[in-house]
Amino acid sequence: MPDRVRIALDAMGGDHGAEVILPGADVSLTRHPDIVYLLFGNRAALEPVLDRLPRLKAKSKLVHTEIAIRMDDKPSQALRYGRWKSSMWLAIDAVKKGEADVAVSAGNTGALMAMARFNLKMIHGIERPAIAALWPTMKGESIVLDVGASIGADETHLVNLAAMGSAMARVLFDIERPTVGLLNIGVEEVKGLEQVREAGRILREGQFPHFDYHGFVEGDDIGKGVVDVVVTEGFAGNIALKTAEGTAHQLASYLRAAMNRTWAARLGYLLARQAFRTLRDKMDPRKSNGGVFLGLNGVVIKSHGGADAEGTAAAIDMGYDMVRYELLAKIGQSMARDLKATATETARLASGVSS
Amino acid sequence: MPDRVRIALDAMGGDHGAEVILPGADVSLTRHPDIVYLLFGNRAALEPVLDRLPRLKAKSKLVHTEIAIRMDDKPSQALRYGRWKSSMWLAIDAVKKGEADVAVSAGNTGALMAMARFNLKMIHGIERPAIAALWPTMKGESIVLDVGASIGADETHLVNLAAMGSAMARVLFDIERPTVGLLNIGVEEVKGLEQVREAGRILREGQFPHFDYHGFVEGDDIGKGVVDVVVTEGFAGNIALKTAEGTAHQLASYLRAAMNRTWAARLGYLLARQAFRTLRDKMDPRKSNGGVFLGLNGVVIKSHGGADAEGTAAAIDMGYDMVRYELLAKIGQSMARDLKATATETARLASGVSS
Repeated sequence: MPDRVRIALDAMGGDHGAEVILPGADVSLTRHPDIVYLLFGNRAALEPVLDRLPRLKAKSKLVHTEIAIRMDDKPSQALRYGRWKSSMWLAIDAVKKGEADVAVSAGNTGALMAMARFNLKMIHGIERPAIAALWPTMKGESIVLDVGASIGADETHLVNLAAMGSAMARVLFDIERPTVGLLNIGVEEVKGLEQVREAGRILREGQFPHFDYHGFVEGDDIGKGVVDVVVTEGFAGNIALKTAEGTAHQLASYLRAAMNRTWAARLGYLLARQAFRTLRDKMDPRKSNGGVFLGLNGVVIKSHGGADAEGTAAAIDMGYDMVRYELLAKIGQSMARDLKATATETARLASGVSS
Repeated sequence: MPDRVRIALDAMGGDHGAEVILPGADVSLTRHPDIVYLLFGNRAALEPVLDRLPRLKAKSKLVHTEIAIRMDDKPSQALRYGRWKSSMWLAIDAVKKGEADVAVSAGNTGALMAMARFNLKMIHGIERPAIAALWPTMKGESIVLDVGASIGADETHLVNLAAMGSAMARVLFDIERPTVGLLNIGVEEVKGLEQVREAGRILREGQFPHFDYHGFVEGDDIGKGVVDVVVTEGFAGNIALKTAEGTAHQLASYLRAAMNRTWAARLGYLLARQAFRTLRDKMDPRKSNGGVFLGLNGVVIKSHGGADAEGTAAAIDMGYDMVRYELLAKIGQSMARDLKATATETARLASGVSS
């Protein structure tokens, strides 16, 4: 186990840039004093913030670059002006060169994905990467993927997502055979998109020794923790994730308003404030910020573009855990095994249809 | 304005059937004493429940049928054995014949949609129906559509959904020019599905005098109430809706658990119980149960298959409101006007691309 965790941080990413990312890095450092940072960004933007954060400054090395990827550029544009030299590229490249254990960025998702693929390359047997999110549930946590790495998924990709997600669940949750569900709009076999139905058939009929296929799940089953791994295409997955975050924000604000309305409510709030504090933590979507890019030869974490310091810290914590527990190596092994079974079964069952 | 509202109720639909639907109808009757019911279902199942609900029994006429649509049948199967004679068909047919003002069913969505289309027919100019949900937001309510009438949508259908949703918003929220957003996975122009991007372009560049196109919105913007109308394809819309419901359930259960943990929390709860009661109402997804089928020559409301009596009552209330305020007629007028503009603009702008 490494004696320290080296985190490459794209300090220019996200909606708020260094003003939020560096304080977030500092928060994470208080929880994990064995972190050291490589900070990539414009010195003029970073240094004034670093000067206010002496603890962070002492554990960081700043690598200057004038180029930052804009949030609204296409991946191809970002690659054109940002390859070799942007803060995002350099953070990923530090992982590639072995100078860092994990890269964290709150920047443009498409650009981050394109650069990570281009530089780190995919794990053998995987054609398309995925972003996996840890979703807090009534029973603990589930893994939901893909939450936005790519749009559209055929049945082969959906079955691959099942293998990738269950490999991650096996390691993170320490479960031998995680349960896998396919997100759909009805639990009945007849409903949903053609490719979701077809993936369901392959998963049901195939022999996948490393996970248990549960069947279709619906949006409200995610939070119930019905399965360990929820598989979905990136468009629907991203909408589900952000809708849940939005709903949590909305209900937290109702709660604050309700507890402030009358003197009795305010007094009640004071009495129960410890309970409210625990509750606030559980309801806070920032605490589960951070998507893991799966399928790459290296650990890259995507933080929410709009994350504040607390959210940024959660994404860095996730990267830290991935390194600390050697999750990527374990996931990689697990995934190689699962993907082999997946490829065999998909080919066998898909050919049964087309022939 | 009619002196009473005649509701045709498919008493056999949903996961729980008459045992839940009839008590729900009774709850709605306490709020709207001017309701009269036509109840369709198996006498043997309905009568014992009705005997326990004398108020409901007095305002209802029972129409016996032995045929109920199963929850897991394909629409084509359901049509085959259920046309002319199932409780679902008869409820819709009562609207068609003018014997009822609205049909409410918690049954199989696909079958309900197929039967409603087959019997009531689409409004001129609309090819595919949509299910619209009322979504509680920080600012009040928004309309989200489609939440599951059909899977997949090209740009023309998405623009039609904008017209249908804004017609409903104009009437329900009394706003002259509702704002419309397209659900996508990033606010940047470059992101998202091809057809969503193309619909965005048409809505942005076209002249739509009856609504304001806001641009793309993300999952977390729905609950913020960023726009009056959120337009999305049915698969993603259904997942968003159910995920939000699931999250609300989850957080409500965290809240209950937190308020029960210590004596101080319990005492705090007692003091603030009025505030909690209001909050519970706001957090309760059952209160916004009920999807309106848009695009049909008649009012059909889909209640959640898993709805309890309270949820059933909310769906019936929604049908009641649609009739009471003559919403369908007004929406129909508004929609005819909007769809004309929509067809013109879509044709003009789409042809600019393909030629």
